[in-house]
Amino acid sequence: MPTEYSLSEIADRIGGEVRGDGSIRIARVRDLATAGPGDLSFLSNERYRPLLGRTRASAAIVGAREEAPCATIRVADPYLGLCRALELFHPSALPRAPGLHPSAVVDPTASVSPKAHVGPLCVIEARARIEAGVVLRASVFVGEGSTIGEGSYLYPGVVVREGVRIGRRVILHSGVVLGGDGFGYAREGRAHRKIPQVGGVGIGDDVEIGANATVDRGALEDTRIGRGTKIDNLVMVAHNVVVGEDCLLVAQTGISGSAKVGDRVTLGGQVGVVGHITIGDGATAGAQAGVTRPVPADAVVAGTPARAFGEMRRVWAAQQRLPGLLERFAALEEKVRALEARAEDPGPAAPPPSRPR
Amino acid sequence: MPTEYSLSEIADRIGGEVRGDGSIRIARVRDLATAGPGDLSFLSNERYRPLLGRTRASAAIVGAREEAPCATIRVADPYLGLCRALELFHPSALPRAPGLHPSAVVDPTASVSPKAHVGPLCVIEARARIEAGVVLRASVFVGEGSTIGEGSYLYPGVVVREGVRIGRRVILHSGVVLGGDGFGYAREGRAHRKIPQVGGVGIGDDVEIGANATVDRGALEDTRIGRGTKIDNLVMVAHNVVVGEDCLLVAQTGISGSAKVGDRVTLGGQVGVVGHITIGDGATAGAQAGVTRPVPADAVVAGTPARAFGEMRRVWAAQQRLPGLLERFAALEEKVRALEARAEDPGPAAPPPSRPR
Amino acid sequence: MPTEYSLSEIADRIGGEVRGDGSIRIARVRDLATAGPGDLSFLSNERYRPLLGRTRASAAIVGAREEAPCATIRVADPYLGLCRALELFHPSALPRAPGLHPSAVVDPTASVSPKAHVGPLCVIEARARIEAGVVLRASVFVGEGSTIGEGSYLYPGVVVREGVRIGRRVILHSGVVLGGDGFGYAREGRAHRKIPQVGGVGIGDDVEIGANATVDRGALEDTRIGRGTKIDNLVMVAHNVVVGEDCLLVAQTGISGSAKVGDRVTLGGQVGVVGHITIGDGATAGAQAGVTRPVPADAVVAGTPARAFGEMRRVWAAQQRLPGLLERFAALEEKVRALEARAEDPGPAAPPPSRPR
Repeated sequence: MPTEYSLSEIADRIGGEVRGDGSIRIARVRDLATAGPGDLSFLSNERYRPLLGRTRASAAIVGAREEAPCATIRVADPYLGLCRALELFHPSALPRAPGLHPSAVVDPTASVSPKAHVGPLCVIEARARIEAGVVLRASVFVGEGSTIGEGSYLYPGVVVREGVRIGRRVILHSGVVLGGDGFGYAREGRAHRKIPQVGGVGIGDDVEIGANATVDRGALEDTRIGRGTKIDNLVMVAHNVVVGEDCLLVAQTGISGSAKVGDRVTLGGQVGVVGHITIGDGATAGAQAGVTRPVPADAVVAGTPARAFGEMRRVWAAQQRLPGLLERFAALEEKVRALEARAEDPGPAAPPPSRPR
Repeated sequence: MPTEYSLSEIADRIGGEVRGDGSIRIARVRDLATAGPGDLSFLSNERYRPLLGRTRASAAIVGAREEAPCATIRVADPYLGLCRALELFHPSALPRAPGLHPSAVVDPTASVSPKAHVGPLCVIEARARIEAGVVLRASVFVGEGSTIGEGSYLYPGVVVREGVRIGRRVILHSGVVLGGDGFGYAREGRAHRKIPQVGGVGIGDDVEIGANATVDRGALEDTRIGRGTKIDNLVMVAHNVVVGEDCLLVAQTGISGSAKVGDRVTLGGQVGVVGHITIGDGATAGAQAGVTRPVPADAVVAGTPARAFGEMRRVWAAQQRLPGLLERFAALEEKVRALEARAEDPGPAAPPPSRPR
Repeated sequence: MPTEYSLSEIADRIGGEVRGDGSIRIARVRDLATAGPGDLSFLSNERYRPLLGRTRASAAIVGAREEAPCATIRVADPYLGLCRALELFHPSALPRAPGLHPSAVVDPTASVSPKAHVGPLCVIEARARIEAGVVLRASVFVGEGSTIGEGSYLYPGVVVREGVRIGRRVILHSGVVLGGDGFGYAREGRAHRKIPQVGGVGIGDDVEIGANATVDRGALEDTRIGRGTKIDNLVMVAHNVVVGEDCLLVAQTGISGSAKVGDRVTLGGQVGVVGHITIGDGATAGAQAGVTRPVPADAVVAGTPARAFGEMRRVWAAQQRLPGLLERFAALEEKVRALEARAEDPGPAAPPPSRPR
């Protein structure tokens, strides 16, 4: 049975101002289209404004000066308000009692905090360290000597290879693989000879990594993901990559070996970044961009090969006109040919016969 | 030892007409290049027609009016005919006897049908429901309160997080993750604050999802995949997406949050769809398309940003001519400059000296 | 405690020539930026040449005729030299003693070499064969009748479905799925009817496959990966594909059904290859290429739709000039219109009034 809060209590917790009846009881949060009586909803995307006018929700979190047919909580940033309201109703991921499930296979030399939860069928290898408050849900693998910092939460099926250091409050979703060997080979005649990948992986505090994403271990040094960076599903981070703090790497993006990504960088979905380049702090690459050259700080790039977004947008617009341009071009060439011919031989055409001299 | 059928028996089962000796014994189905005596083959792709003329197969499934050097079964749709013939020889995925493997970890509050097969090292959490005829092969995780409908088949290593409802006869391949958290954050200064993802996932009857694909749980409401839709390997379906019925989502495609995909939509491989847009019933996006705007029903789009396929094809063709166009353009500018100069100063050129006035 | 070698010993092992003091003791290999006293470094990428001049490493592996402020080992190919030096310091992946972990679930009809290592929570089904020197780390699944050749190494969480034949010294990283069903359906009205996928998968000797990559089983015949081919993370190889020997398939690349890839082919990251085409020996496709037509041997292609790299580069360069071209084109059309008008009506403009006849 979900907890209920009054609208005023919620407003207090999320730092907003109630318009309407603050005593309304709220049992849950739903989106504008599906919310009904007893529900709290929200408007944070202009696209959905028409839904606000006809929502059946009892209340909604909205921006300053927003009018609605229901009670509202006005906040500066409705999306952040939603976030805080949801934290109130859903205080955390499924909590787990501390302790080791009897089916887990834990090496005697591993150090597992008595305040950690180790679920069924987990494997913890020699000298690994699992700190207080860590949750390993089920079938999680932690390799030799790897460490999982306080309060981190690993969903079923995560693989952490040997030599990986994970910070505090890190969330790893199912199927994440940290510390797989980097893709490094030396040519030897026609064959590719594997270069031992002996670096590790370092994951900062408050990082979250989505389902089936992979972060390879470094060849010599560590591959590193900075504090607060969020990585979406099926992203690939290659060996020796260094990603800064508070970045967003959207789904299916790939970063090639030894690339350096600054702080607060956003890479849209399916972006590819070539190896050994630097992406400056605060830069953004649009979805599907192919980033082949260094990107300056705060730049916004798009397309393949990626260039400044404004430029790329003009190229895209121009491309649409390209087939027509080719036709007009051929017509213009014809006209110029005619003009040239006339210039060579102004003869009867200049002046035209129908025109009195 | 495989079962044998006579060609006539096969023709009866697949609804075709035998040409040649219907008593031929067929032991298996192979492709035209490798089939030999005792094998049944097929022609469904024009590309492989030359192979039909020289196949060593004893018989082949072909279209109406097709001639071949071997016995044939003529059907309206040879690919569907092949499908049915294969069903005859390979009646189902590896069948499994009902029962719980002793190494499975099943919460006492979970409801597991006695007619379900729960393989080794599976984990079934509290209040989950596993219906009759379900097969969980090995190391499958089913989270709290999730349900798996009749006859569904989950391959080794599938993860079904809490709050996921799976229909009947659903096939989930190894490494599929259903119900991972959506990628949702609110900005708070420079940091990204995780928005609790409290929706679920709903998977319709007869859906199939390929290896290592991921379908995230909704933020507030459910992410939904409609009945009969087939999803290929490594596809990413983000939170709140609603996919209709009988769609084909080819490998490595990504659909961003809150997008709505109609019925009978085909997204080619590596397609990207931005968030919050609608793709109409029956629409198709070509491989690697970047779909940035709504797509009308039955439209065929391609390219990035995606537009009508016919238009895009003209743009692609025109692009190839672009470097040559630039050269021709520069030459044309030169000619026009010369014509202008001549027009300003028709001098000795107009009239040409060799021509009497 | 790592083993130490003298610089001369290392030079002997990697086939290089020492310049400087060959008695220097080397404890490990690091990159130029982080190496310090007692470390060996290397220069194999021109990009990092400035770092060589100021490295604190005791020695470096360099090309012929290279000068450095530290001792050097000169070799013909520094990257290959690095590779061999690392092999000296890190002789293999974490070695594992032979034997079956008691938590592994092994069918009595499976054949497991007493010289194989079967880690915790592995599942080996009926009639599977695991040869000498094989390592199955943890939670590895090997399906009915599949075989794993001598010396192969499967990391935690690998899934090998039934009917898969894996050669010798193959490395499969965590999350790899071999033998998932191909994506094959026959249309039946509006619905898609699953075509039983009854082929297998064949993996040649010395193949390596990265984390969370998938290779589907063939529809009728086997999907095949040739000897020595290296596949990066999150790559998708569809049913019936045949990949040759010594190829490199970089991360997130997808190869559609029945495509044939020759020997020594390189597909850059995020490349897509359509079905049923052939890519010739030695060909290369640049990152994000969309390969829609056959590629001749040794060709280098790029872009979508992919064409010869040189051509594509000119197209990309021309595209950047396209918005400017449109403006210049409009201006030129205007000029031609003016010239035409003047040609029709040379009137006061020809000759210009300011000019004496």
